[in-house]
Amino acid sequence: MSAEEKKIPYKIYLSENEIPTQYYNVRADMKKKPAPLLNPATHQPVTKDDLRPVFCDDLIDQELNNTDAYIDIPQEIQDFYKMYRPSPLVRAYCLEEKLQTPAKIYYKFEGNNTSGSHKLNSAIAQAYYAKKQGLKGVTTETGAGQWGTALSMACAYFGLDCKVYMVKVSYEQKPFRREVMRTYGASVTPSPSMETEIGKKINAEHPGTTGSLGCAISEAVEVATTNEGYRYVLGSVLNQVVLHQSIIGLETRAAMDKYGIDPDIIIGCAGGGSNLGGLVSPFAGEMLRGEKNYEIIAVEPASCPSLTRGKYLYDFCDTGEVCPLAKMYTLGSQFIPSPNHAGGLRYHGMSPIVSELHDQGIIKARSYEQTQVFEAAEKFARCEGILPAPESSHAIKAAVDEALKCKETGEEKTILFGLTGTGYFDMTAYQQFNDKTMTDYVPTDEDLQAGFDAIPKFPGNEL
Amino acid sequence: MSAEEKKIPYKIYLSENEIPTQYYNVRADMKKKPAPLLNPATHQPVTKDDLRPVFCDDLIDQELNNTDAYIDIPQEIQDFYKMYRPSPLVRAYCLEEKLQTPAKIYYKFEGNNTSGSHKLNSAIAQAYYAKKQGLKGVTTETGAGQWGTALSMACAYFGLDCKVYMVKVSYEQKPFRREVMRTYGASVTPSPSMETEIGKKINAEHPGTTGSLGCAISEAVEVATTNEGYRYVLGSVLNQVVLHQSIIGLETRAAMDKYGIDPDIIIGCAGGGSNLGGLVSPFAGEMLRGEKNYEIIAVEPASCPSLTRGKYLYDFCDTGEVCPLAKMYTLGSQFIPSPNHAGGLRYHGMSPIVSELHDQGIIKARSYEQTQVFEAAEKFARCEGILPAPESSHAIKAAVDEALKCKETGEEKTILFGLTGTGYFDMTAYQQFNDKTMTDYVPTDEDLQAGFDAIPKFPGNEL
Repeated sequence: MSAEEKKIPYKIYLSENEIPTQYYNVRADMKKKPAPLLNPATHQPVTKDDLRPVFCDDLIDQELNNTDAYIDIPQEIQDFYKMYRPSPLVRAYCLEEKLQTPAKIYYKFEGNNTSGSHKLNSAIAQAYYAKKQGLKGVTTETGAGQWGTALSMACAYFGLDCKVYMVKVSYEQKPFRREVMRTYGASVTPSPSMETEIGKKINAEHPGTTGSLGCAISEAVEVATTNEGYRYVLGSVLNQVVLHQSIIGLETRAAMDKYGIDPDIIIGCAGGGSNLGGLVSPFAGEMLRGEKNYEIIAVEPASCPSLTRGKYLYDFCDTGEVCPLAKMYTLGSQFIPSPNHAGGLRYHGMSPIVSELHDQGIIKARSYEQTQVFEAAEKFARCEGILPAPESSHAIKAAVDEALKCKETGEEKTILFGLTGTGYFDMTAYQQFNDKTMTDYVPTDEDLQAGFDAIPKFPGNEL
Repeated sequence: MSAEEKKIPYKIYLSENEIPTQYYNVRADMKKKPAPLLNPATHQPVTKDDLRPVFCDDLIDQELNNTDAYIDIPQEIQDFYKMYRPSPLVRAYCLEEKLQTPAKIYYKFEGNNTSGSHKLNSAIAQAYYAKKQGLKGVTTETGAGQWGTALSMACAYFGLDCKVYMVKVSYEQKPFRREVMRTYGASVTPSPSMETEIGKKINAEHPGTTGSLGCAISEAVEVATTNEGYRYVLGSVLNQVVLHQSIIGLETRAAMDKYGIDPDIIIGCAGGGSNLGGLVSPFAGEMLRGEKNYEIIAVEPASCPSLTRGKYLYDFCDTGEVCPLAKMYTLGSQFIPSPNHAGGLRYHGMSPIVSELHDQGIIKARSYEQTQVFEAAEKFARCEGILPAPESSHAIKAAVDEALKCKETGEEKTILFGLTGTGYFDMTAYQQFNDKTMTDYVPTDEDLQAGFDAIPKFPGNEL
């Protein structure tokens, strides 16, 4: 029976026993695999032993596993998922009506949990493996605070200590996010701090700096590697994170199968690539296996355009250059978006899995300026009710544009996008938009060149 | 089959076609009805014509309808409900485990929508009837902002103008709530303003006042009655609001019936009484009809103890004394909670329906001081994941206490409570709690007497 012959509800919920019990590892279906992480000293692929001081053992296995298509989700993680999953797949009837489009629009909504985003999907997995290994706690960085909140919740659940290094400007401008993390028992330190060697160094070299994500990563890694019983965890970019986030795509696939729906276009916002990678994994897998064909679109801010204007090279994941090198679309680890950028998705690089799928033509990319994105967010909020995160609103903007194309052509395409989270802690950005003081900025080629110049040069890694 | 023989999921969701299509009007099953509203000038029961300048016509019918047990929910409202309802009935497995209690704890979670609370259930109904009547817009007041946000969302959906008078102290301290309302297209004015006669009067009499809910109500009513095509809407207290909120209780009853569950204890926080009244309506109806017996507990802040320490008398609903008189448990319309009160539920009166059910012994009441409430909130957040609103946390505290009693006695009671909303916009209060600067204050009898003295005196309405 076709989708149209069935009555599609506003929200398609799987039942609790339909939540996937295995993650899907898209790397297994990629003929050309994402490039391995490199040891920054030797430029050789990292070994498990290289990574052991930094990451949890089981997570290292997942990070390096290019072959197993399905990996069991431990029961403890499944139980936690049941507290906030399955997330709904929503038919955007009201948005369709508003746009007067023949397109059918669906979104997978990951914001119905206190972290406000999909980040919890990986946070609980990483906390579980840390607990299983008998660790005392974990360290991490956070920018806007979604990941730090998610990790705080996960650590509270498993009784782990949680040390969060929060980009100083966010720490000061987003005190409420900080308080959410503290309520869950995490310690939150503004970065760069004077508690770490790298923090002291950055503060000395850049007095008065308000910090960056790359800098906070460096601090969190240092604390994890110099404190007994701690490891570092990361909320995006890594292969393991895309693996955990595959639950988004698997649930979406299952919900669509229930009603015989197949998307023509799949859209996700892209910062580090965790949400996009997770949402599209099962669909990209179908394409890689030659079973289906979809138009997959990554959407990024024009002010931080790693996929659309970056270089596909090995680069540092962090400003302090202490992490392994990853091959990814990058703007250079010293790149920091213009201060007027309010729309999130500000990481300089991109998940190696997403990068490789983009390089293979499976994932396309486009970028938007932020005022357009907030216009789409406002339109969406007023008809669909949900106030979207600025990050998620990049995907909304692309979905609206595709739906409007269908209105012109009369095509009844099915559009799926990932609505990663809510904007309740982003009201300063909305206020700029409401007050019409929000501005756009697109970096010049010259701006970008400065970032590219800092990408490490070694044989095989030249511009 | 008993509840225990079935496997109860973490979250019980009704399907979309199981959402109730009629509201339940508990007044129909009350032998002694709530006292009618009185015209403040004549002390006679208000007529429909008295109310027409202030309220929408259909809502007046609902307000005065003491006889119809079920009232159809129009299709347009049902369609909106499908965007965020049914709300989940959650089994608090993790909280039970944490407390090591034999009690079974369930909560009906109303926070998974952008208004962050149950308020949207009535906002959309009131906006619908305003639109149906061909009005241009509606006016209202808001304190912390949940109701104003809900109404803004509802008005955006139906294309109605929405004028919100926001208590000045909240307007200044909660700019993010204000921005959410603006994003939905509402105008938000700090109250008391200089735009209304009553606002000018209050500002003249109390220079520098930071406002109160009662004062904002007076302004909103004035604007509604002096502008062509506008009416006033209210988010709590009124009979119509309890009627709309009965959807909470009806869904809960249906979800419990699916698994053969019957609660022993039903708990709701109580400010104006809309959530409590809605949650307990169907259960109170069973008691009123002599079919079942439940222990129903209203929980209020010790700093605003209308049910536990107030008088059951006719009183003004607003500071400006422009609204009809309602018979309710009240602290006096001039009562304002101590400035250190951060936990919400600060209205001086209580829904006439809830008041009468309390007077008849159907609803019991208790109060807690706010630090106890935030301790319960923190405990709940850390194991159940959801960061609760301070208001809702009053119910959590009572549920925890009841579960701990069961631990002592070994009783396997089933406890149901209403989790009305999330605390994302209440982080200033959480910060006070995290910083251990939160204090408690219980008004003395003398404090309360000042409020009681302002209750209007007329024959049959004496202390």
